Amino acid sequence: MHLGLIGLGKMGGNMRTRLRNGGHTVTGYDRNPDVSDVGSLAELVEALPSPAVVWVMVPAGDPTRETVAELGELLSEGDLVVDGGNSRWTDDQLNAEKLREKGIGFVDCGVSGGIWGLENGYALMYGGADDDVAKILPAFETLKPEGDSGMVHAGRKPGAGHFAKMVHNGIEYAMMQAYAEGWELLEKVDVVDNVTEVFDSWREGTVIRSWLLDLLVVALKDDAHLDEIRGYAEDSGEGRWTVEAAIDNAVPMHVIAASLFARFTSRQDDSPAMKAVAAMRNQFGGHATQAGSPAGGDSSAPPEK
Amino acid sequence: MHLGLIGLGKMGGNMRTRLRNGGHTVTGYDRNPDVSDVGSLAELVEALPSPAVVWVMVPAGDPTRETVAELGELLSEGDLVVDGGNSRWTDDQLNAEKLREKGIGFVDCGVSGGIWGLENGYALMYGGADDDVAKILPAFETLKPEGDSGMVHAGRKPGAGHFAKMVHNGIEYAMMQAYAEGWELLEKVDVVDNVTEVFDSWREGTVIRSWLLDLLVVALKDDAHLDEIRGYAEDSGEGRWTVEAAIDNAVPMHVIAASLFARFTSRQDDSPAMKAVAAMRNQFGGHATQAGSPAGGDSSAPPEK
Amino acid sequence: MHLGLIGLGKMGGNMRTRLRNGGHTVTGYDRNPDVSDVGSLAELVEALPSPAVVWVMVPAGDPTRETVAELGELLSEGDLVVDGGNSRWTDDQLNAEKLREKGIGFVDCGVSGGIWGLENGYALMYGGADDDVAKILPAFETLKPEGDSGMVHAGRKPGAGHFAKMVHNGIEYAMMQAYAEGWELLEKVDVVDNVTEVFDSWREGTVIRSWLLDLLVVALKDDAHLDEIRGYAEDSGEGRWTVEAAIDNAVPMHVIAASLFARFTSRQDDSPAMKAVAAMRNQFGGHATQAGSPAGGDSSAPPEK
Amino acid sequence: MHLGLIGLGKMGGNMRTRLRNGGHTVTGYDRNPDVSDVGSLAELVEALPSPAVVWVMVPAGDPTRETVAELGELLSEGDLVVDGGNSRWTDDQLNAEKLREKGIGFVDCGVSGGIWGLENGYALMYGGADDDVAKILPAFETLKPEGDSGMVHAGRKPGAGHFAKMVHNGIEYAMMQAYAEGWELLEKVDVVDNVTEVFDSWREGTVIRSWLLDLLVVALKDDAHLDEIRGYAEDSGEGRWTVEAAIDNAVPMHVIAASLFARFTSRQDDSPAMKAVAAMRNQFGGHATQAGSPAGGDSSAPPEK
Repeated sequence: MHLGLIGLGKMGGNMRTRLRNGGHTVTGYDRNPDVSDVGSLAELVEALPSPAVVWVMVPAGDPTRETVAELGELLSEGDLVVDGGNSRWTDDQLNAEKLREKGIGFVDCGVSGGIWGLENGYALMYGGADDDVAKILPAFETLKPEGDSGMVHAGRKPGAGHFAKMVHNGIEYAMMQAYAEGWELLEKVDVVDNVTEVFDSWREGTVIRSWLLDLLVVALKDDAHLDEIRGYAEDSGEGRWTVEAAIDNAVPMHVIAASLFARFTSRQDDSPAMKAVAAMRNQFGGHATQAGSPAGGDSSAPPEK
Repeated sequence: MHLGLIGLGKMGGNMRTRLRNGGHTVTGYDRNPDVSDVGSLAELVEALPSPAVVWVMVPAGDPTRETVAELGELLSEGDLVVDGGNSRWTDDQLNAEKLREKGIGFVDCGVSGGIWGLENGYALMYGGADDDVAKILPAFETLKPEGDSGMVHAGRKPGAGHFAKMVHNGIEYAMMQAYAEGWELLEKVDVVDNVTEVFDSWREGTVIRSWLLDLLVVALKDDAHLDEIRGYAEDSGEGRWTVEAAIDNAVPMHVIAASLFARFTSRQDDSPAMKAVAAMRNQFGGHATQAGSPAGGDSSAPPEK
Repeated sequence: MHLGLIGLGKMGGNMRTRLRNGGHTVTGYDRNPDVSDVGSLAELVEALPSPAVVWVMVPAGDPTRETVAELGELLSEGDLVVDGGNSRWTDDQLNAEKLREKGIGFVDCGVSGGIWGLENGYALMYGGADDDVAKILPAFETLKPEGDSGMVHAGRKPGAGHFAKMVHNGIEYAMMQAYAEGWELLEKVDVVDNVTEVFDSWREGTVIRSWLLDLLVVALKDDAHLDEIRGYAEDSGEGRWTVEAAIDNAVPMHVIAASLFARFTSRQDDSPAMKAVAAMRNQFGGHATQAGSPAGGDSSAPPEK
Repeated sequence: MHLGLIGLGKMGGNMRTRLRNGGHTVTGYDRNPDVSDVGSLAELVEALPSPAVVWVMVPAGDPTRETVAELGELLSEGDLVVDGGNSRWTDDQLNAEKLREKGIGFVDCGVSGGIWGLENGYALMYGGADDDVAKILPAFETLKPEGDSGMVHAGRKPGAGHFAKMVHNGIEYAMMQAYAEGWELLEKVDVVDNVTEVFDSWREGTVIRSWLLDLLVVALKDDAHLDEIRGYAEDSGEGRWTVEAAIDNAVPMHVIAASLFARFTSRQDDSPAMKAVAAMRNQFGGHATQAGSPAGGDSSAPPEK
């Protein structure tokens, strides 16, 4: 098929390549003229056959909202917009509604696979009406990994695809935290001789074998104690939205929330909350705080009264 | 090689089969005469060539401690005991010490793989001196899965194998909880049309693909809403010991601990802690408690003052 | 002063009494004619001197939004609306904006004290412009507890009062959970002879003495093991909004979030997440699930491989 | 009464003063001759009337164990040892057993109150046989705060007092964390004008008023943003033992455990677990890690695929 693709960054650029390798015609647009096939969104739309199918692959939030709004002006009845970015599923509902007023279809599509997707394929979770999905299905078939899995029509309501992807990322946070906590314990306690070898061994036959484990082993083989990496992790919106959706729906979510909070903590130079804890301890126990003057050799004082 | 195997339950029985299929001679002993090859531990030891190698595969705690103590009486200098059960690593240190006094070697071995191990092989994490490990290595080679992974000499100190296996299980708890929380959210919110299909799609190309995910999909294909299963999960010792080791070593372990606590909660008919919460709310807010008499139609009262 | 009071339920009714006892004139309105002083909102507004001051004490969300909107139609420039309910602070921003367009002032006020407020006074946290606050200050002075504390002009921006009250409730959730977890442990372990006496003793001289502790002791003296209470706790919006505000601002909030999730769990007959955990355990370990057929006397099988 | 007191540090020294102010005769011993009344434990024992009563107030663990063992050599049948330190309750069981073999009584006593105890009294939670408790009761009556509360015979079994104190401290950790999380959120979000004033206002009339809140307000009035304090908090044994007791007894303990872990985190310069998380993110997403080379202006790349 012939489709338009907006956003040719790390993800979008690789997806264009995979689509072209699969025999599709892709007209790409990016603000960066070095990678763009056309000079503007309008040019992109003009280049497409009718009905036009445009895949949006730009950052979630304002960039996606603005791009979809602009496409609403440029496209015609029967055309289709696919949002393949990391939009919040509630944004999809608004975007779909605005496009529907003009007879333009909308499909939201969560994409997983990272930098490995070009070679191995991208897992796709999409939402939207059956006839809208049918228009983009040939591209999905090329993008997806080999095998029976890796692609799902998550729901007919707009946002179903991004909702599924959002939960996927929430699970991902907690899985990463699980391996990370185990790794820290093994590193800290002087019992196991070679922690990397232990993690490597887990890649076959164990209950916890996974792709994330494979990746962690790659990293550990390169830098056994991760000396070159700071314990600092960003979070994208999906982890936050997953916990918020849980709260909205009264779903207990201890481990995903704790994984998210651990990322927040990792980005703090000092913890305001722990300042408050230290301040209280100091008040009742006369415990010296770190920046204060140490109380000195009070050897017989029990530590926390 | 020819080895003795004590404990022919679900795990031990399958391991005997896999060892025999691999060309080894196994003399097995179990309290249950229907599955046992010999009538007593003494008979088992007599049946083995020198140096004798005995694999213990009985429940952790007293049963293992007693079996090892008995073997200490029956075996001779140069023989070897392998504890393949789920012993706490601190038990290994005691068991190894007692056997060493008599010149008997000791290897602790954590085994993963469950009921799939017979066919796919068992992941093995073992600890002990190199020359002790050498005596049991042929059996390890047969038990392990195919491929380069699945087996590790975790450390030379007794307990290193079980310590690695313990951490493996702690990670496992949190991974299971991660999928479980995501599943609950998808089930609760009416956005995704078919939750099983979403989980199934994640099996290829996603960041969270894993063997546990494969297993969950098998279960969901059989019973999409898990109506036939109660939300009740036992815990074995390893999860508890992992968190205790974390506490002993000042390692933060939010998600593994929370996963363990979720299992505790799952086994309570009613939560004592939440009784106390309800009691306090009732005292300050006049909130009706569930077993008490409802306060009635107080429509304009804010809910929690 | 003479003020209008809308909503005469448990909280509003008691506040009317305390205001009248303090010498103020209160014209109250409630949908329930048995407790209402006037027949309609319009009558209430007519009864007030100019500038009119109206205190809204109805449930958060739609009831408050609708009442404020109606007051926007009935009141005049220079009048004042006080929202003393449990509104989300983001609602205050919208309500204040709508009233401001008509020259009507707005003060949001979080109120704490529960059923004890009538006698002991209500803690008040309010937000709004200084001249708006000045109009309602005489009522605040009467409602507040004795002493120097118990009242704060939290901020000049609309929502500052409810934001402070929201965080107060988040803290409250975690404090209640803290006592509750300690109580459960003391009840469970057979070491302490009389748990109620221990809690009672903590009321003087300890680091954890508090009003919540006093209340819990009252409850325990009446029902030592809380046999009459189910472990079931509702949550009002404030706990949820506190965690959501934390997530929006990348603030780690482990204990308040966990306290909220514990309440969610307390209201589930069975845990979907734990069904999923049980399903996975069953798949890899052949562990019998609770509703399935027990595997039987497999005495030598280690519990979790 | 006349009693011996071993350990005259911050706690022990103040307790000696309060006991003497209450009319008791105290013979104190400390390794530091500047504060000690006698030159050795033997001298201390000789100075006491029969039956001798000796209060041990030294750090938990080896110092207490060794002191009790030494007293076992020096004391006679009918004498009494009181352990007022922060011993683990399981230590009490061992200490009591050893002393009992020689006919020496044992009372364990958890003490709360910190540096405020000298003036306000110490809350006491003690365990032991009735006749042993009777021998030290006059001292308890002097040490305790005024009022009906502040003292409890927690149980007849050795360790009951320290067990109660241990749980007290676990609750304390979570209460401190609750206030701390709330404070961090109020500090972070620009809604409330003066966070200290808000906390100060909560001291009267609110559900969350407590002594800890009073103390935090004292600290905030001195240093509103706690700029002088590092977010670093030690933990004493009690918090750890509380969580371990919970695990041993299958009691869910989300918030106390999370509070303990937050203290662990506060003492880490960098988080090993978050290094592992960052390493995994880097592997699948090509996310630049903090110490690596930034990927540059990849504006259209979704952040976490």
